[in-house]
Amino acid sequence: MSSEKKAETIESKEWYLAAHAPEGVPTSDHLRLRTVNISLAVDSIPNSHVVIETLYISIDPYLRAIMTGIDDGLYLSQFQINQVISAFGIGRVIRSKESTYSEGDFVLCPFLPVAEYSVVQPSHLHLRKIDPASGISFTDYLSTLGPSGFAAWVAIEVVGNPRSGSNVFISAAAGGVGMHAGQLAKLKGCNVIGSTGSNEKVKLLKELGFDDAFNYKSSESFDAALSKYFPNGIDFYLDNVGGKMLEAVLNHVNSKAHIVLCGMISEYNKVWTERDGVRNLMNMIGKEVKMEGFMMGSSMHRFGDFAKQMETYIKEGKISSKHVIYNGIESFLEGLGSIFSSSNMGKVVIQVKSKA
Amino acid sequence: MSSEKKAETIESKEWYLAAHAPEGVPTSDHLRLRTVNISLAVDSIPNSHVVIETLYISIDPYLRAIMTGIDDGLYLSQFQINQVISAFGIGRVIRSKESTYSEGDFVLCPFLPVAEYSVVQPSHLHLRKIDPASGISFTDYLSTLGPSGFAAWVAIEVVGNPRSGSNVFISAAAGGVGMHAGQLAKLKGCNVIGSTGSNEKVKLLKELGFDDAFNYKSSESFDAALSKYFPNGIDFYLDNVGGKMLEAVLNHVNSKAHIVLCGMISEYNKVWTERDGVRNLMNMIGKEVKMEGFMMGSSMHRFGDFAKQMETYIKEGKISSKHVIYNGIESFLEGLGSIFSSSNMGKVVIQVKSKA
Repeated sequence: MSSEKKAETIESKEWYLAAHAPEGVPTSDHLRLRTVNISLAVDSIPNSHVVIETLYISIDPYLRAIMTGIDDGLYLSQFQINQVISAFGIGRVIRSKESTYSEGDFVLCPFLPVAEYSVVQPSHLHLRKIDPASGISFTDYLSTLGPSGFAAWVAIEVVGNPRSGSNVFISAAAGGVGMHAGQLAKLKGCNVIGSTGSNEKVKLLKELGFDDAFNYKSSESFDAALSKYFPNGIDFYLDNVGGKMLEAVLNHVNSKAHIVLCGMISEYNKVWTERDGVRNLMNMIGKEVKMEGFMMGSSMHRFGDFAKQMETYIKEGKISSKHVIYNGIESFLEGLGSIFSSSNMGKVVIQVKSKA
Repeated sequence: MSSEKKAETIESKEWYLAAHAPEGVPTSDHLRLRTVNISLAVDSIPNSHVVIETLYISIDPYLRAIMTGIDDGLYLSQFQINQVISAFGIGRVIRSKESTYSEGDFVLCPFLPVAEYSVVQPSHLHLRKIDPASGISFTDYLSTLGPSGFAAWVAIEVVGNPRSGSNVFISAAAGGVGMHAGQLAKLKGCNVIGSTGSNEKVKLLKELGFDDAFNYKSSESFDAALSKYFPNGIDFYLDNVGGKMLEAVLNHVNSKAHIVLCGMISEYNKVWTERDGVRNLMNMIGKEVKMEGFMMGSSMHRFGDFAKQMETYIKEGKISSKHVIYNGIESFLEGLGSIFSSSNMGKVVIQVKSKA
């Protein structure tokens, strides 16, 4: 849309929560698309607001956890019924009544409405301008410089800080967080092995520099796989899946091992009483294991350090990201559901509009 | 036994492991008493050895975990079949062929054979002399200055270090570790509440200075009790029981809560696959909880600091200990079994002989 032919009213499709989904993968019973009209007339845009045309939406596992209507694990604010879903995304400013933003600016937003167009207040939604000429692709902004990369960076650089030479295990390693965490751990000199759900993704992980990787689906058991890949035990585990894999890891930890809990993809679709219980926490006593959970929100004051380091790594070719693109706002539900299968190679993003 | 009437040979009853006990409370199928003859003739005592007459034996939960024959949790060396059980205890030297020990010396030993008499090498068994005129009772040496007090001190002073004003919960609070940990946390200015298994022990905990305590057996549920006693949530939890109580606590933790795993008395009598699984570890992510296990053996270099501080506290009346005495070497099995019931008020010790 060029500025010469601004329509006064525009149709916008948006995803909203029709019903909470306490269990299972969310479906069209829970998430629905509707079309609304948005006025672009200058008088109708509130002061200090801008109109954003959405380009990309990042799909992250935490989104699932805030559609349940129950605070049982991540303790983030839940989406309300009828509320438009919001997610980390990239958009372009097409109208501005906020002096620091101009039409044509590209912006990152951690809480961008999952809609084709939206009227937002930049200061409330933590908008940040990005330079399309920076040499960093929009998908890198969403992935390596977005929630996945930041969660991985906090896990490895802030919370975990595994020592050079230590044996690091990463589950869901071909997911957005896992692939970045593994590369960061390699840059720290660790011996890094990942688990994932397909042979194709095992190959991807080796291409990304992991020392080794295994397909948990074709292993006899988690236990057998860990015995094979960690004959000298696990010193550091970044847990992205929880449940049975976490339990198996606790039977293979070395003394003073450190476990960082980042996410539990195997457990998000269950109410907590139906989740897999971990029965061998006593091993944490004998092996003096430290296990800690974190939320990246608590490290937002480090976002600048993160972005600087990661931009350098990207430009130096030391960190790369693999992503899967779903096309069109309509694909949001399918993209979200896909992260609970093993079908994706890397980070999942929705391309709502092209940049041009 | 005075030195004037030294018998050349003496009968000694000793407890040995007849069979490993992977599950359940150990019985006479597993632990048996036998009588052996010990020669007191000087020529028959090896050089660098002493003969000890046992006075007291400390009963500690870890003993249970090393009778299973399976390394599944604490990873301590297991007792072998036919091996005499050893435990923390106090004895008197009645013969010495080691120049630093004299007949009549009182000694503490972390690995004293559970026997009336034993021939031991002081340097191998980490013997330490104690002064009966120090003003500290033998039971205090076993309890406050023994494994219970040391585990509590490491949990509170070294690993946990809860902040003044924080809400501290201690399970199995009337046990040897719990009662000391609660008093140490009170000395740090914490708000300390304990759980225990009888109303009589609730009363004991209040006498020991706990801010409050509850009988988990008469609570509607662990969850209801924690809601009632921690309306502002739990900041620090010293876990001595594991299983369902640990799970309940994870539903009541505050952000950045710290959980120190000291023991899991509810789980020792089960093989690991039968233990209660903890289903809500995801709460550790949302609440950014840190959970860590420890073994007091890793803090042995701090034993001197511990003993100095605790002796001062004992003499100043700031820490006291409650104990239950079982009489005679024959009562070892009963005393060990008792820690898995809720029958004891405080630390359990076996008095094998009187001091006089």
